[in-house]
Amino acid sequence: MDIKVGLIGAGRMGSAIVRRLLAAGCDVLVYNRTPQKASALVQSGARVASSIEAACRGRELVITMVADDAALQDVLLRSGGLRDSLPAGATHVAMGTHSVAAIGAAESAHRAARQNFAAAPVLGRPEAVDAGQAGIVVGGSAAALAACRQTLAVIGRRLFEAGDEAERAAALKLTNNFVLAGCIEVLSEAFALVRKYGVAPSVCFEMLTEGLFSAPAYRTYGRIIAEQSYDQVSFTARLGLKDLNLVLAAADAACVPLPSANVVRDRLLSAIARGDSDRDWSVIAREQARASGLD
Amino acid sequence: MDIKVGLIGAGRMGSAIVRRLLAAGCDVLVYNRTPQKASALVQSGARVASSIEAACRGRELVITMVADDAALQDVLLRSGGLRDSLPAGATHVAMGTHSVAAIGAAESAHRAARQNFAAAPVLGRPEAVDAGQAGIVVGGSAAALAACRQTLAVIGRRLFEAGDEAERAAALKLTNNFVLAGCIEVLSEAFALVRKYGVAPSVCFEMLTEGLFSAPAYRTYGRIIAEQSYDQVSFTARLGLKDLNLVLAAADAACVPLPSANVVRDRLLSAIARGDSDRDWSVIAREQARASGLD
Amino acid sequence: MDIKVGLIGAGRMGSAIVRRLLAAGCDVLVYNRTPQKASALVQSGARVASSIEAACRGRELVITMVADDAALQDVLLRSGGLRDSLPAGATHVAMGTHSVAAIGAAESAHRAARQNFAAAPVLGRPEAVDAGQAGIVVGGSAAALAACRQTLAVIGRRLFEAGDEAERAAALKLTNNFVLAGCIEVLSEAFALVRKYGVAPSVCFEMLTEGLFSAPAYRTYGRIIAEQSYDQVSFTARLGLKDLNLVLAAADAACVPLPSANVVRDRLLSAIARGDSDRDWSVIAREQARASGLD
Amino acid sequence: MDIKVGLIGAGRMGSAIVRRLLAAGCDVLVYNRTPQKASALVQSGARVASSIEAACRGRELVITMVADDAALQDVLLRSGGLRDSLPAGATHVAMGTHSVAAIGAAESAHRAARQNFAAAPVLGRPEAVDAGQAGIVVGGSAAALAACRQTLAVIGRRLFEAGDEAERAAALKLTNNFVLAGCIEVLSEAFALVRKYGVAPSVCFEMLTEGLFSAPAYRTYGRIIAEQSYDQVSFTARLGLKDLNLVLAAADAACVPLPSANVVRDRLLSAIARGDSDRDWSVIAREQARASGLD
Repeated sequence: MDIKVGLIGAGRMGSAIVRRLLAAGCDVLVYNRTPQKASALVQSGARVASSIEAACRGRELVITMVADDAALQDVLLRSGGLRDSLPAGATHVAMGTHSVAAIGAAESAHRAARQNFAAAPVLGRPEAVDAGQAGIVVGGSAAALAACRQTLAVIGRRLFEAGDEAERAAALKLTNNFVLAGCIEVLSEAFALVRKYGVAPSVCFEMLTEGLFSAPAYRTYGRIIAEQSYDQVSFTARLGLKDLNLVLAAADAACVPLPSANVVRDRLLSAIARGDSDRDWSVIAREQARASGLD
Repeated sequence: MDIKVGLIGAGRMGSAIVRRLLAAGCDVLVYNRTPQKASALVQSGARVASSIEAACRGRELVITMVADDAALQDVLLRSGGLRDSLPAGATHVAMGTHSVAAIGAAESAHRAARQNFAAAPVLGRPEAVDAGQAGIVVGGSAAALAACRQTLAVIGRRLFEAGDEAERAAALKLTNNFVLAGCIEVLSEAFALVRKYGVAPSVCFEMLTEGLFSAPAYRTYGRIIAEQSYDQVSFTARLGLKDLNLVLAAADAACVPLPSANVVRDRLLSAIARGDSDRDWSVIAREQARASGLD
Repeated sequence: MDIKVGLIGAGRMGSAIVRRLLAAGCDVLVYNRTPQKASALVQSGARVASSIEAACRGRELVITMVADDAALQDVLLRSGGLRDSLPAGATHVAMGTHSVAAIGAAESAHRAARQNFAAAPVLGRPEAVDAGQAGIVVGGSAAALAACRQTLAVIGRRLFEAGDEAERAAALKLTNNFVLAGCIEVLSEAFALVRKYGVAPSVCFEMLTEGLFSAPAYRTYGRIIAEQSYDQVSFTARLGLKDLNLVLAAADAACVPLPSANVVRDRLLSAIARGDSDRDWSVIAREQARASGLD
Repeated sequence: MDIKVGLIGAGRMGSAIVRRLLAAGCDVLVYNRTPQKASALVQSGARVASSIEAACRGRELVITMVADDAALQDVLLRSGGLRDSLPAGATHVAMGTHSVAAIGAAESAHRAARQNFAAAPVLGRPEAVDAGQAGIVVGGSAAALAACRQTLAVIGRRLFEAGDEAERAAALKLTNNFVLAGCIEVLSEAFALVRKYGVAPSVCFEMLTEGLFSAPAYRTYGRIIAEQSYDQVSFTARLGLKDLNLVLAAADAACVPLPSANVVRDRLLSAIARGDSDRDWSVIAREQARASGLD
C-alpha cells in the first residue's frame, strides 16, 4: 500500500498502529512530543518528524492517537498544529478515545479549513492491534471515509461505520465502553450475591461463561472478580472513571438518561475515594462486596 | 438407566424433562393437575399417575417442575402431598425457578421428614432441554446430590454444583437470570444512546456481538432491541418482573444491595404500567427509549 | 364521649391510644396477648379482656394496633378472632402500619362478614399521641368512616381522609414514611459532600433548617447525621428496611417505579450487612460516608 | 455604611443586591455588559461604570453576579478585567452560583495577584433579597471575609460561613440546591404512588406539609406537583439540569457518589428530551407520572 501517512502520538497504541502500517508497506512519518518513543519505531522503518508540521508534509492522511481531549485540541489548534499544517484536501483521522464534543469541535475546525476529518477510535488494546484483531469504529464525511477506509482496513480486523458525522463514531465507541462497564457492574453484584449464599465464585463463573455469557468480556472480568485479583490491571479505575464521564457527557448532550452508567460511576468514585484508583477498574466489585458486608 | 422417577408438573419444561428421561430408559410416572398434559407423554412411554401419592409410589426420585412458590408449597405440604408420600430415603428434586425462601422451607420440611431434597433449576428453555443443551444448577445435601446426579446428567448438558444447601442452587440460578436482566438493561441504554446520535442500531449490534460481547445473551436480545421486535416473546415482561422480585428477595434476605436489579425492576414496572406486560421482557428498551424522547 | 371501644394490641402505641380514649370518657376494653401490658392500663380506667372475643363483646368499634401483617392476619382470621367475634354492623379500625395487600385482604374479609373496616394508621410516635399531636390517615367505606371519625378525632390532632378504600390509607401512610426515608437519604448524601469539602456539618445543618427545609424531619435527622449520633435510636435500621419493603411492595402492586426508595433500601441493606441494624435508620448516612471514603 | 462597592452584572439578582446596598447608604458603581440594565438603577442612586476597570476604580469591594462559569472567567481574566483592575488589597466577592472548579480557579488567580477573594452565593431569589430575607453562604480567606462580612450582612438576612476556602461556599450552596432537587424528586415519586391508589393529591399535600415536612420547599413544590402546574415557572428544567451537573461535578471532584442526584438528573434529561426544558424543574414529576403509566 503506497499511501503516505503521518502519525502523531507514538504511545503504546500509536506505535502498534505504526507497525501495522509499516508492515503493509506504507510510508510513515511519526511525531511524538517526547522524541524517544518515535525513535523506537525507526528500526521498523518509520521516519521521525521533528514537528507536527513536518509530520504533515506531503501526507494524504494524518492519524492522531493522543491521550485525551486537551491533547487533541492542542495538536489541532496550536500554531503550527494540524489545522495549520495539513495539506488542503488531506484527511485527519483521530483514533483516540475522545468526547463527542471534542470530536464535533475538531470536525468543525477542519471543515472550516477545508480539510477532511474522521474519527476512528479503536476497540481493543495495543496487543489486539499488533495481532491484527482490533475492531475500529469510524465516522466522518464521505470524502473522509473514502480517504481512510483502506488504511484503517490495514490497521484493524474490521470496520464498523457509524455514519457521516465524526461524532457518531465517538458516540458508538463510548457506547462499547459503557456496555463493558455495565457488564462489570452486573458481575460485581452477581458475585457478591452468590458469595453471601456460600456459593463458590468459580462455579458462578463457569455457569455464566459456559452459557449465555460465553464472551470475552465475561471471561476476562468474571475471572478477575471471582479471584478478586484487581491488581492485574488492564485498565485502571481512574481511566474507567474518565471513560464513564465521557459516556455520561455524551448522554447528557443527547438527553439520554443512563441509570446503569450512574451506578458504575458511583462505584468507581467510591473505589477511588478509598484508594483503589490504580487498580483494575473491576475493583468496583470490591465496593459492591463492601456494601454487602463482605471483606 | 434403570432409575425409577416420578415427575410432578408436566408443563412444557416438565414434559421436556420427561422425554429426556424416557429416552435414557428411565421408568417415569407423571402427575399433572390437569391430566391431559400428562397423557400426551404416554405415547413417549411415560405412565400417568392419578395423584401425587401415586406418582411417588416406589420412586427413588421425584422431580417437581411447578410454576411458582405457591404451587411448590401446595404440592409439598398438602395432605397426600410429597412430604406425606415420598418414601423414606427417597429424594425430591425441585427443578422449577423458586425463591430462596421457598427452597429453604422445602429443605427444612424434607429434613424433618427424613427425606432428601435438592434444588436443581434449569438454565434455559424447554427446547434446550429437548436438545440436551440445557445447563442445570444443583444444590443439596451430599445424600441428595448422590441420589440425583446421574439423573440430572441425563436431563442436561452440564451440572453446576452450588453447594450443600438447596437454597444455594436457587440463589445461583436467580443470579444467572439477574445477569441476563442486567445485560438487557445495559443494551437498552446503549441502543437509546446510539439512536440519539443517528447511528444505525444494526451497526451497534454488530460492533458488540463481533467483539467483547459475542455471546448468546447479546445476540438474542441485542437483535430484538435493535429491531424493536418486542412482540417476538420468549419471556414476558410479567415473568421478568416475577424473576426480578425473586432476585431482589434473595438479595434482601442476604443483605446485598443490587442497584442494577433495581434499575431493571423499575423499567419493567413502567413497561407493565403502560400495557406491555405480555411483550418480551426486553421491552424495557422501549421504556428507555421513551425516557430518552425517542418513539 | 360514650362510645364503647375495644382495643387489641396494648404495646406502646396501643397504650397511648387507650389513654386518649379514656381521657375522653370512652369505655375501653383492652386485649393484649401478654396480659401484663393491658393490666398497666387498668389504673387509667381501662378494663381488661381475656380474649379477642371478650374484647369485642358489646363494642361498636374495635381498634387493632399490632406489630405487623402476620399479627393482623392472625388476630383477624384465627378461630375466635375479629371476623368471628365482631358484632354485625360494628367496625374494625386497623391503626398499625400494614402493607397495602394486608389491608386489602382485611377489608375483603370484613366485607364478606358484613362488618365495617377502616385503616387508620398513625403519623408519629406514641409520645405524639399522648400529647394529642399525632396525625391520623384514614380510609374505608362511608359507613366505616362514619363509625370511627369521632373516635379518631379524639386520638389524634388531625385526620387525613384518603378515600373510600382502606388500602388508600395504607398507601398514603407508607408514602409519608417513604418521603421521610428519602429526606434522610438526601441529607446523608449532602453531609458527605460538604464534609469532603471541609465544611462544618453544623453550618450545613443551619443553612438547611433555617431556610427551605425548616421542618421537623430535617431538624431531627439533620442533627443526628451532622453529629453522627446514630445510637440515639428513634427508629431502627431494621424497622426502616421493613417499612421500605412495604413501600416498594405497594409500588410494585401499582406498577410505580420508585428509584429513590431503591436507593434508601440499598443503603439500609448495607448498614444491616455491616452490623448497624439496631442503630437509628439514619445510619444510612454512615454508609454514604463510607462509600465516599470518609470514616 | 460608607463602604465603596463595585458591582458587575446587574441582572435581576445583581440589581436586587444593588438596591440593598444603596438603601444602606453605600456608594455603588455598577457595570453591566448591556448598559440599560445598569441605568435602571441610577434612579435608586447607583452610578454607572462604563467598563469593569471603571467599576473597580477606588473600590474596596467588587461584587460579581454573572450568569455562569464562562462569564465569571471572562470578567476575571480578560484584558482590563477584574484581575487587572482590582486595586491591591481590595476584595472580589463572587455571588453567583458557580462550579467548585471555577471558584477554585478564581481564588488562585486572585491570590497570585495579591487580591482578596470570597465566594458568597445567595440562597433564594431576587425577591427574597429585596425583602431582606435571603441567606448567603460565604467562604474565603480571613482577610476576604473580614472585608465583606459587613456588606453581606446588609444584603442578606443571615450569613452561613463555610470556611476559609472560597470553594467551600460553592460546595455548600450547591448542596442546598441538591437537597432541594432531592426533595422534588421524592415528592414526584410520592405523588405518583398515591395517585395510582386513587388518593387525592391535595390530601397527600396536606399530610406532608402539616406534619414532618412543614417547610417552604415542600409547600412550594408539593403544591405545584399536586396541581401539575408546571407552567408556573420559578426555575426551569434546563437551569435545574445545569445545577445538577454542577453538583455532580463537585461530587466527582471530591469522589462522592450521589445516587439521589443521579436520579434527579436522569428525570431532568427525560423531561428535556420530551420538550419540557422551559417548564418548572418540578416537571420531573410528570416524567415520574409517565413512567408510572399515568397521564
